[in-house]
Amino acid sequence: MSESKPEKQTARLEAFSDGVFAIAITLLALELKVPHFTAEAGEPTSVALAKSLASQWPSYFSFVTSFFTVLIMWVHHHTIFRLVLRADAKLLFANGFLLMVVTVVPFPTAVVSEYLRTPAAPAACTLYAGTFVLIAIGFWLVLNAAFRRSTVDPNASEATLNRLRSSYRLGPPLYLLAAISAPFSPWLAMAICTGLWILWAVTTREC
Amino acid sequence: MSESKPEKQTARLEAFSDGVFAIAITLLALELKVPHFTAEAGEPTSVALAKSLASQWPSYFSFVTSFFTVLIMWVHHHTIFRLVLRADAKLLFANGFLLMVVTVVPFPTAVVSEYLRTPAAPAACTLYAGTFVLIAIGFWLVLNAAFRRSTVDPNASEATLNRLRSSYRLGPPLYLLAAISAPFSPWLAMAICTGLWILWAVTTREC
Amino acid sequence: MSESKPEKQTARLEAFSDGVFAIAITLLALELKVPHFTAEAGEPTSVALAKSLASQWPSYFSFVTSFFTVLIMWVHHHTIFRLVLRADAKLLFANGFLLMVVTVVPFPTAVVSEYLRTPAAPAACTLYAGTFVLIAIGFWLVLNAAFRRSTVDPNASEATLNRLRSSYRLGPPLYLLAAISAPFSPWLAMAICTGLWILWAVTTREC
Amino acid sequence: MSESKPEKQTARLEAFSDGVFAIAITLLALELKVPHFTAEAGEPTSVALAKSLASQWPSYFSFVTSFFTVLIMWVHHHTIFRLVLRADAKLLFANGFLLMVVTVVPFPTAVVSEYLRTPAAPAACTLYAGTFVLIAIGFWLVLNAAFRRSTVDPNASEATLNRLRSSYRLGPPLYLLAAISAPFSPWLAMAICTGLWILWAVTTREC
Repeated sequence: MSESKPEKQTARLEAFSDGVFAIAITLLALELKVPHFTAEAGEPTSVALAKSLASQWPSYFSFVTSFFTVLIMWVHHHTIFRLVLRADAKLLFANGFLLMVVTVVPFPTAVVSEYLRTPAAPAACTLYAGTFVLIAIGFWLVLNAAFRRSTVDPNASEATLNRLRSSYRLGPPLYLLAAISAPFSPWLAMAICTGLWILWAVTTREC
Repeated sequence: MSESKPEKQTARLEAFSDGVFAIAITLLALELKVPHFTAEAGEPTSVALAKSLASQWPSYFSFVTSFFTVLIMWVHHHTIFRLVLRADAKLLFANGFLLMVVTVVPFPTAVVSEYLRTPAAPAACTLYAGTFVLIAIGFWLVLNAAFRRSTVDPNASEATLNRLRSSYRLGPPLYLLAAISAPFSPWLAMAICTGLWILWAVTTREC
Repeated sequence: MSESKPEKQTARLEAFSDGVFAIAITLLALELKVPHFTAEAGEPTSVALAKSLASQWPSYFSFVTSFFTVLIMWVHHHTIFRLVLRADAKLLFANGFLLMVVTVVPFPTAVVSEYLRTPAAPAACTLYAGTFVLIAIGFWLVLNAAFRRSTVDPNASEATLNRLRSSYRLGPPLYLLAAISAPFSPWLAMAICTGLWILWAVTTREC
Repeated sequence: MSESKPEKQTARLEAFSDGVFAIAITLLALELKVPHFTAEAGEPTSVALAKSLASQWPSYFSFVTSFFTVLIMWVHHHTIFRLVLRADAKLLFANGFLLMVVTVVPFPTAVVSEYLRTPAAPAACTLYAGTFVLIAIGFWLVLNAAFRRSTVDPNASEATLNRLRSSYRLGPPLYLLAAISAPFSPWLAMAICTGLWILWAVTTREC
C-alpha cells in the first residue's frame, strides 16, 4: 500500500554497462595465443609445446590480474548504481568514459604479455598502470555524477555515500604510484596492481 | 487500480539491440594493436616501445571518436524506443539495418587508424564519414517506423515526437557534409565527426 | 484476481539465446578486413585504397546476407519461444545445437568472402549453404521440442502451432536446394540464400 | 498477501555470468580459420579448398566438444543459482574464478585444434583436460560458497542440495583422469571429455 520506494530508471544503463564489462572481461582471453613453430623446425614435440606454453607465463599473469581487476570494478559499479535512481547526461558521460577505458584493458594487457620479459618492460608496465589510473579517475567521475541530489536514491544514508566517496579517493593515487614506479621497476608496478585487486577483493563486503 | 499504461512489448527487441550496441562498442578496442618489432632489430627498448605506441595516435583518436559516437547512438536508440510499445516488421527491419551499420563501425575505424597519416587518408575518411551517413539514415528510418500509430505509445505527446523527428533530420546532411569534404580535407571530415558527437553529448538532456 | 496465465520459466534460456544471437551477428563484421599494401609498393594513394576496398565486395555481399539471415532467425526464435512456458533437456539441447550452428555462421561467411571470385567458389558456397541447411534442421528440431504438451503454452491455439510447424518445413529443403546447386552454380546458391532472407523478411508479420 | 518468498538479490550477478558464458561460447567459433593458400600455388580449386576444409576436422571436433561442455556448464550454473538468494564476497570470487576459466576455454580448444594430429598432441590434450579440471574445481568452489545458510534459499530442500553436492563431486576426479591419461593417450583424454558432456547432457533433467 505504502509503496514509498521511488522508481529506479537506470535498468537499461546498468544492463548496457554490465554487457560492456562482460564482453571486455571475456575478450581478455583472446590475448592468450596458440604457440606456433616455424615449418623448418619440423613437427613440434610435446616437450617443445609444453615449454612454449610455459614461456608465455607473462600472458597468464597479466590475464589473471586484468580479469580480477575488471571483475572487482564491475562489483564496484554495481555498488554505486544500486544507490542511483536516475541518470542524467553528466552521469551518462562519466559512465561512458569509464566504460571506454574498461574496454581498452585488453590492449595494455596484451602489451605487458608481450614485453614484460624484454628491456621494454618499463614502458609496457607504465601503459598498464596508466590505464588503471584512468579507470580510477573514471570511477571518481562516476561517483561524483551519481551521488548528486538529482540522481541518487533519497533513501541512501549519507554515511553510506560518504564511506563510498572516501574509499574511491584511494584508487587514483595508488594506481598513479604504480604508474610512476613502472619506469624504475616494472615488477613493483605489477605487484602494486596485483596487490590492489587482492586488497579490494578481500575488503568487498557486499555484491 | 486504474492501470491505464498499455503493455510494452519491445523488451526483447530492446535487449537484443542493447546487446549489439554493447558488443560493437567493445569490439572497437580490438583495433588497438600491440606494436611488433622485427627480430633482426634486436630486443626493443622502452623508448622504442613508447615511440611506437605514441605513433599509433590515429588509432586512439578514431577509437575515442567511434566509441562516443556509438555511445550517443545507443542513448538516442533508448530515447526513441522509450516511446514505442509494439514492433512490427517495418520497425524490425529498419532497426536491423541500423544495427548492421553499427556493427560495421569498427571496420572504417580501423581503416582510418591505418591510413589517416598516409596519402590514402581522403579515401579512408570518406569511408568513415560515409558509414555515419548510413547510420544517420538508419536512425531516420527507425524513427519513421517507430512513430506510427500502430507502434508508438499513445500517451506520447505529439510535441515530443515532433521534437525528436526534427532533431533526427539533422544527422544525414551533417554527416554527408563530412563525407563530401573528406576527399578535399580528411581532417575537416574527422573534425565534423568529432564535433557532432560532442554537440550531441552536450545537448543530451535525458538518458 | 484471475491470474490464469501460467508462469513462463524460460526467461534465462531466452536471454542466453539472445546473447548468443547478438554476439554472433556482431562478430560477422570482424570478417571485414582492412586492406594492406606491401611495403615495396610505397605508400598507398586514395585511389589504390578505394579500389582495394571496392574489390572486397564479396565480403560486403556475404556480410549483408549473413547479417539479415541471422536477424530473421532471431525473430523466428523469438516467435517460437513466445509460445513456450517450460524448457526441458530435449528443448535445451535442440536449442543448443541451433545456437552452435548460428555461432559458426561467421566462418562460412568468411570462406565465401575469400573464395567467391576464385575457382574454389563452388566449394565455398556449398559450405555456406550447407551451414544454413544445418540451421534449418536446428529450427525444425527446436520447433518439435518446443511444441510438446510438457513445454508449450496451453493457451497457444493449435492453428498457430500448425501454421508455424508448416512454415518451418520449408527451410531445410530450400537451403538443401541451394547447397546442391552450389557445385554447379555458386551464384545460384548465393541467390537462393539471398532470396530466402528477403522472402522471410517480407512475410514476417509479428516480431 | 502472504508473500513468503524472500527476495532474490542475485539477478545482476546471474545476468553478468550469463553474459560471460554467452560470449565465451560464441568466441569458440573464432578458432575456425579460413584456409589460405600460398600465392605461388596459383588460385585454389574447389577440390583443394574442400580438402583443406576437411583436414581441419580436429578444429570441428574440439569446437563441438567445447561448445556443448560450456553449454552444460551454463545449465549447471543456472541450476545452482536458482537456489541462491544472496551473493557475498566468497560466492562472488568463487564465481569469478569459474567465469575466468570458462573464458579461457577457447585457448586450449585452439591448441588442441592445431596440435591434435602432431607429435605434440599429448601436451595439447593435457592442457585441454587440465582446463576442465580447473572448471570442475571452480564449480565445486561455487557450490560450496552458494549453499551456505547466508546465501541459499531457505526453502530449498536439504535433499536437493545434497543431490547437487554429490553430483559435483564427480567432476574434478573425472577430468583429472582425462588430464592424467593425456600424456599416454591424447585420444583417450578427448574421449573422456566428450563422454562427460554427453553423460551430463543425457542426465540433465531440469534447465
